[in-house]
Amino acid sequence: MHIELSEKINSKKSIIGVIGLGYVGLPLCIRFSEVGFQVLGFDIDESKIEYLKNGKSFINHISNEVISRVISNSFEPTTDFSRIQECDAIIVCVPTPLNKHREPDLNYILETIDSIKSHIKPGTIFSLESTTYPGTTKEVVMPIFEESGFKIGKDLFLAYSPEREDPANKDFTTETIPKIVGGHTKECLDVAVCLYEKVVNTVVPVSSTDAAELTKLLENIYRAVNIGLVNELKVLTDKMGIDVYEVIDAAATKPFGFKAFYPGPGLGGHCIPIDPFYLTWKAKEYEMHTRFIELAGEINSSMPSYVVEKLTYGLNKYSKAVSGSAVLILGIAYKKNVDDMRESPSLKLLELINNMGGNVSYSDPFVSRIPKLRNYSFDLQSIELNKKNLQSYDAVILATDHDNFDYDFILNNAKLIIDTRGRYRGKEKNVIHA
Amino acid sequence: MHIELSEKINSKKSIIGVIGLGYVGLPLCIRFSEVGFQVLGFDIDESKIEYLKNGKSFINHISNEVISRVISNSFEPTTDFSRIQECDAIIVCVPTPLNKHREPDLNYILETIDSIKSHIKPGTIFSLESTTYPGTTKEVVMPIFEESGFKIGKDLFLAYSPEREDPANKDFTTETIPKIVGGHTKECLDVAVCLYEKVVNTVVPVSSTDAAELTKLLENIYRAVNIGLVNELKVLTDKMGIDVYEVIDAAATKPFGFKAFYPGPGLGGHCIPIDPFYLTWKAKEYEMHTRFIELAGEINSSMPSYVVEKLTYGLNKYSKAVSGSAVLILGIAYKKNVDDMRESPSLKLLELINNMGGNVSYSDPFVSRIPKLRNYSFDLQSIELNKKNLQSYDAVILATDHDNFDYDFILNNAKLIIDTRGRYRGKEKNVIHA
Repeated sequence: MHIELSEKINSKKSIIGVIGLGYVGLPLCIRFSEVGFQVLGFDIDESKIEYLKNGKSFINHISNEVISRVISNSFEPTTDFSRIQECDAIIVCVPTPLNKHREPDLNYILETIDSIKSHIKPGTIFSLESTTYPGTTKEVVMPIFEESGFKIGKDLFLAYSPEREDPANKDFTTETIPKIVGGHTKECLDVAVCLYEKVVNTVVPVSSTDAAELTKLLENIYRAVNIGLVNELKVLTDKMGIDVYEVIDAAATKPFGFKAFYPGPGLGGHCIPIDPFYLTWKAKEYEMHTRFIELAGEINSSMPSYVVEKLTYGLNKYSKAVSGSAVLILGIAYKKNVDDMRESPSLKLLELINNMGGNVSYSDPFVSRIPKLRNYSFDLQSIELNKKNLQSYDAVILATDHDNFDYDFILNNAKLIIDTRGRYRGKEKNVIHA
Repeated sequence: MHIELSEKINSKKSIIGVIGLGYVGLPLCIRFSEVGFQVLGFDIDESKIEYLKNGKSFINHISNEVISRVISNSFEPTTDFSRIQECDAIIVCVPTPLNKHREPDLNYILETIDSIKSHIKPGTIFSLESTTYPGTTKEVVMPIFEESGFKIGKDLFLAYSPEREDPANKDFTTETIPKIVGGHTKECLDVAVCLYEKVVNTVVPVSSTDAAELTKLLENIYRAVNIGLVNELKVLTDKMGIDVYEVIDAAATKPFGFKAFYPGPGLGGHCIPIDPFYLTWKAKEYEMHTRFIELAGEINSSMPSYVVEKLTYGLNKYSKAVSGSAVLILGIAYKKNVDDMRESPSLKLLELINNMGGNVSYSDPFVSRIPKLRNYSFDLQSIELNKKNLQSYDAVILATDHDNFDYDFILNNAKLIIDTRGRYRGKEKNVIHA
């Protein structure tokens, strides 16, 4: 049956179903559609489906033109999960957050499988792309399908292939980022490789779904730990009177054995602050601790408080307290030049300063208002960065260094700047480095 | 005075004195000599001077031909430190180890300065290359010279320029590795840049000697922490039944944001196990902890014990104890294809197994016998790797994966292999992965 499926994929007669139309799933739909597949995109969020049907994008770095083109061609978004029965390949790109106790929350995956399992036809490939702990595919996903009567590797092909999307990265796209694939059996792996080779230049097969799952975690653990390291170093060099950015840039001139990471106000995004703890949770099953992950988590999540400490110190120079002061946060997205505010440390800053009685606002050219979020409920709109507005704030915190901020204008008009991104290196007059 | 000195350097009429003729100083002597400078090389070790005078190298990756050529040309090695008076530039490349309490031991630097300060003529540049904590040049070195009557930046130019030698790296040499330089004053920096530009393609000036000192530490802290991270991961994946090397190699296919580090039996060499603790020590002056460095140190230094645990487990399968067993360690150098055994975890393995009553030997094509070392005193000679010898050992520990070991031969003739380098991935019969 796997040979028939591979042949159908090779002839591009197979229908591709992608579940979860966010930062990962939507680019994948576009890519499959562009190479000539018929694509069904599934999401429970009706507003997203409406946007797409009208040829509109809801992600900043994906243009309306691209959406219009694939919609008029071979991409159909829908909320009707029974249409999974039309699909030969099912790719799941739903979120895998942490719950309040920082444990893996697989509910989006479980609910997805629950809503589709009765609609899957024999001879289909099911590939999970959501980041998760090693063992998820084998220990959680597979048993559900087996209980539903599927024979894995015979009439259902089970694979895990971690997403590696990097929004707003101009050098790499879905097509050019190599894709890791693990299959439950050799047949599962063969079909998965066949599928992904249609849309990705380089497919990297590994020996198991476990290995594929851990690969993605390692990539993000590496980032979380190295960002933790430079954040710890930033706090130390601040006391030593050494410019940490100068030192990092100098070290980066070493042509081997070094990779530069830069400090900031904390970790953000859906991956780096969350993924590592999936391994932490799983490791406990083996009575093991993931000490680097835990240390990185502790240091990175303490950075917003460090920034507020620096704010307090800066305002104190003007004999002001945080309470009653007007504070403007520049950049609410978790990294520059994107509109994604998931897990953004700016939100934590908003909350901390608000709790201390500060009158806190924000300005972000990519985020006109803050919508209802998983952990926060603010009702704020982006402030325009004109002279009058800037001068009205007791302090401005540069949290996200979007390229289209006018940094000289901000420097010349803000009373006090708390710079968490090293944009105002060497500027000492009204700048506090945090 | 700095302009005169720079002109003298530019015309290559200045005499270069390099103190400490080891892995750092000797390549520097060779390079200065090769571009046309007269070079005096100083060392307290008379045997090194004799070697060099006879046209012989004592470092594996530096050939006798090169030594003969520079000796017959413009390089003169000597133990007579009064000849510093002939030098216009003094470059110090002496060791900076840790003492028994893991605190910085600057005695080699201090003794060097003490033995030369009365011989330095006015208008000389003094550049320190030994790795050390930020503040050493300014707080330790400078006061000694000032007390001796020198005016820093006027008649003595004080610089710090960290060595970045990477022995046996075929891609980069002294010439092509960019060189960080910090000066105490602008004049000091100018002269130092002028000096190093003669032998290095890219000189990277930084704003202070502090920044230059910390740059080198950051490079090695980054390595120590990332090796610690993969060592921790190795222990976990071993319990999970996942091949950590497969996962690291898969992650390394990500074309951005990841750099592969590999686990091993512990840290070795003169840099990575030592340098980070220079910052740990200095940080305490600011009531700060360097938690990533300390965690990395703890995990990396526990790896030899982990290997011995795996050895015990492996021997136990044959109903043997370490006590009374014959154990052969393959590779005594701290990394592959070099003869440098400073801080090598293999030495720690020798000690641990010896203390448990094992009959321990070693084989290393680069190290025919183990000389007297700072922390160990063994009297062992390298064992020849023939069939009879291999079969006579109860276990073989692959500690350093030199390229010129015959891995198939070892696999086919050893009773039991403890593989700490992932050379026998997928081989399970007589291999234990450690």
